[in-house]
Amino acid sequence: MKITIAQLNYHIGNFEGNVAKILEAIKQAKAEGSDLVVFGELCTCGYPPRDFLEFDDFIKLSEKAVKRIAKAAKGIAVVVGSPTRNPVIEGKDLYNSAYFLADGKVQSVAHKALLPTYDIFDEYRYFEPAGEFNIVEYKGKRIALTVCEDIWNVGNENPMYTICPLDELMPQKPDVVLNLSASPFSYDHAADRIHVLKANVKRYGLPMFYVNHSGAQTEVIFDGGSLVMSPNGKVFDELPYFQELIRTYDLDEVMTGKAKDKNAPYGEQPKEKIALIHDALLTGLRDYFGKLGLKKAILGLSGGIDSAVVAVLAQRALGAENVRVLLMPSQFSSDHSINDARQLAQNINIQYDIIHIEDIYDEFAVTLKPHFAGTSFNVTEENIQARIRGLLLMAMSNKFGNILLNTSNKSEAAVGYGTLYGDMAGGLSVIGDLYKMEVYALAEYMNKDSEVIPRNIITKPPSAELRPDQKDSDSLPPYEQLDEVLFQYIEKQQGPKEIIKMGFDKKLVARVLRLVNISEFKRYQTAPMLRVSNKAFGMGRRMPIVGKYLS
Amino acid sequence: MKITIAQLNYHIGNFEGNVAKILEAIKQAKAEGSDLVVFGELCTCGYPPRDFLEFDDFIKLSEKAVKRIAKAAKGIAVVVGSPTRNPVIEGKDLYNSAYFLADGKVQSVAHKALLPTYDIFDEYRYFEPAGEFNIVEYKGKRIALTVCEDIWNVGNENPMYTICPLDELMPQKPDVVLNLSASPFSYDHAADRIHVLKANVKRYGLPMFYVNHSGAQTEVIFDGGSLVMSPNGKVFDELPYFQELIRTYDLDEVMTGKAKDKNAPYGEQPKEKIALIHDALLTGLRDYFGKLGLKKAILGLSGGIDSAVVAVLAQRALGAENVRVLLMPSQFSSDHSINDARQLAQNINIQYDIIHIEDIYDEFAVTLKPHFAGTSFNVTEENIQARIRGLLLMAMSNKFGNILLNTSNKSEAAVGYGTLYGDMAGGLSVIGDLYKMEVYALAEYMNKDSEVIPRNIITKPPSAELRPDQKDSDSLPPYEQLDEVLFQYIEKQQGPKEIIKMGFDKKLVARVLRLVNISEFKRYQTAPMLRVSNKAFGMGRRMPIVGKYLS
Repeated sequence: MKITIAQLNYHIGNFEGNVAKILEAIKQAKAEGSDLVVFGELCTCGYPPRDFLEFDDFIKLSEKAVKRIAKAAKGIAVVVGSPTRNPVIEGKDLYNSAYFLADGKVQSVAHKALLPTYDIFDEYRYFEPAGEFNIVEYKGKRIALTVCEDIWNVGNENPMYTICPLDELMPQKPDVVLNLSASPFSYDHAADRIHVLKANVKRYGLPMFYVNHSGAQTEVIFDGGSLVMSPNGKVFDELPYFQELIRTYDLDEVMTGKAKDKNAPYGEQPKEKIALIHDALLTGLRDYFGKLGLKKAILGLSGGIDSAVVAVLAQRALGAENVRVLLMPSQFSSDHSINDARQLAQNINIQYDIIHIEDIYDEFAVTLKPHFAGTSFNVTEENIQARIRGLLLMAMSNKFGNILLNTSNKSEAAVGYGTLYGDMAGGLSVIGDLYKMEVYALAEYMNKDSEVIPRNIITKPPSAELRPDQKDSDSLPPYEQLDEVLFQYIEKQQGPKEIIKMGFDKKLVARVLRLVNISEFKRYQTAPMLRVSNKAFGMGRRMPIVGKYLS
Repeated sequence: MKITIAQLNYHIGNFEGNVAKILEAIKQAKAEGSDLVVFGELCTCGYPPRDFLEFDDFIKLSEKAVKRIAKAAKGIAVVVGSPTRNPVIEGKDLYNSAYFLADGKVQSVAHKALLPTYDIFDEYRYFEPAGEFNIVEYKGKRIALTVCEDIWNVGNENPMYTICPLDELMPQKPDVVLNLSASPFSYDHAADRIHVLKANVKRYGLPMFYVNHSGAQTEVIFDGGSLVMSPNGKVFDELPYFQELIRTYDLDEVMTGKAKDKNAPYGEQPKEKIALIHDALLTGLRDYFGKLGLKKAILGLSGGIDSAVVAVLAQRALGAENVRVLLMPSQFSSDHSINDARQLAQNINIQYDIIHIEDIYDEFAVTLKPHFAGTSFNVTEENIQARIRGLLLMAMSNKFGNILLNTSNKSEAAVGYGTLYGDMAGGLSVIGDLYKMEVYALAEYMNKDSEVIPRNIITKPPSAELRPDQKDSDSLPPYEQLDEVLFQYIEKQQGPKEIIKMGFDKKLVARVLRLVNISEFKRYQTAPMLRVSNKAFGMGRRMPIVGKYLS
């Protein structure tokens, strides 16, 4: 038997586009002589469809999509993910299902049993868990259909579920396991995935075909990395990351773990953290623009590391001709800032304009003078500068249709070191899930072949340049320390006592955790942030604004 | 037996404050000779605690709170809601529990079985559903402990759950049902609540004590309205809305449905929609400021209806001395706008300042002129005005510590008729869950005793005044139609076909639904909106930004 996996980039709610892509892949799989082609989870409607699932009209369109695909399932079996209505009145209205299509119609439907409801996932909001487990027979093979999380309750130290779907299916003696996934990228997810698949193969001794999405849906990035595992527990093949790809396998070869063709491109992919993040962010940028039907970006280039890294990412993702930047010096800007920013723009060949903000700033000062009488320069005046820049960028964005990219990093977003409606403005936060030290690492990675980002941008001490001789270190702990405390609190969910036990200063920890918690109101109003870690700000981290915990 | 219900306003994560409040209520209940006092769901930590629940430290503090309260449970039994650890490794780590405390210690713990995971609720994200059901015996009475949603699977047309906790408990022959709730306000929730309680009493024939939270946690408002129901299906008492209150009942009186004291203040509360919304918004405003330790608000007063209504709400919630407004006319402002706004400020006795924005606008025009060469006045220039106003308001906010209130309404937020970082700025959206026609109704309600809002503000055609002779009706359908289409799409989740079937124009429906869907990126960056309907924008409505459905 030949099995094809189709690792595709779907678009939420774009039924026409998704079906066309699926039909094309079926054609290709047939041309390759395949018996069975497998697509991703909820591939008809895209993932995550979120509350669109509450619209009957949306479910009808998903059902129509399955019908159209079923008609093409002739001479080949097709497995697609799509929502299904729950015929029982009690319980949630839908199932998250895998459809087995053959001979031009639906042969059977298997439902997802384990519904991730943590971090960015809200599946129990919509779906009823499967209560029945049945394998499918096709061309003499007994096939176990599973959906994403269904295979993740094996090999975990703290399993979130009380059942294990493959345990339920084993009495029916399946020959092969298919898994339809929509499993988002984080920089260590590919390794986790292989770990979990290996644990499954070890437990059940069956070959597995794991099919993931590629491409991004707003902040959620899918890396692909679809897997074929042999019963001996070895990775038979791992598809390249961040690409659409269709590949056909001979099940006999997968069973033995050996490809007959010595030149077959099978094998594992490299998993270097910063390289993965780099490619993930390009995917996130490309799909945000592509799927919204947009082309052009704009951002403010301050001469600092954050905007430099975002500019290079934008140029690489969208093309130099689609990126423009504004350099907006004030009386507090240093000469090197302008020079460094200009040099970077020239290095990557993007349009740059210099707009001085002093006159506008002075006009605000004159207008506000009677109201500010008796007060002195403080964070208010710093914020006015940041907001004038935000306003100018949005004006250019409105006039010319360039979407503003936000350049805040995760360390800043965490402690609220940014101005709402100023440097926190933008349609998409590109590096909002990268701690400052990771931004530096990414800059070095970008420079690995040649100096794209001027050295001085990387080496000078970070500054917002909103008052004379300002440095980030005036108001924040050193980023080496700050980032580690933040990582423990945000990614590892450690409390103050645990973090202090790791050797961090008690006052520092209390201050940092307090800053994180009192800045929730700012993050609430921030653009979606491309997610690359296991715990990004945004939909995956849901915190009260009005609270009094560590604040 | 005497039973006390304590309807209190908790504060998320403020364990000290919550425990102090609970201890004080226990004291009062004892003074009233009560045998048993019942508090709300998760009252130790506040509701909704959201991802704070993922911190071990937060759970430890909840456990400590229960221990402190247990010590005070002497001579009286106390029932409190608090999270409990799940001792089994499989499944979610926590239960959402009701603790029965007596003789200075925990006597038993009952877990919530039905975990709301829809709209603003995420309970399955954190909690394992109860698998066991046991009643508690105390002073000869057999008591069924239930938590909020546990009693909501009775009398629904489309039940979301497959079990019914009281069905499980009935074989143990309880005498009385206690329900610990944290059930958020919406303008028809009080009526729904009574409907559901009646359905329970009808089915089980038992008296019920339903205890709700009062007060707001950011956008989520709790109205109280705690209920005592007699076995004859009548409301024995409903506590007043939006108040903290402790009241003690004689169970024998509740059983018969008749109070011995003819002067007892028992009875149902009035449920007029706009009056409820008015009081809910005052609660939301008061607690947003109070729980964040803030006092003073600022907003822009345009002369239009939205900002007028928000100014009056702020003045009523926070006091005239804590509210100031800016009038920020441009060359496009009409005389009546300034006059109407000034009149309103004088009517409600709040500080107002007039800041002309023409000079700043001109300075932006000069600065942008070389970059805008060859373009003509369009929405860009309109947005610049809105953003200058936003910047000035934020400058005053930063300088003097007045929190900026957002004045956008739900109709505008729905169709994206607002400027990000301009009139969409602010820490809290006060009327973001009111359609324009509801804003008018609220204005009339405010004027019922005397003319607070100048008549002209209510009667003139709405306009953003960002270009000469602009009217909302230039770019939007009449609000009477728009609001109805939006209501069907947002609150009723009707699709285009269903809405057209109701008699609305096909093109109008397509246009409105498209506007809603393509404006998701704007709403993503909007302040939290005080929730008064069954489907508010924000955490209760989760939509993809990059999608292609009806867009």
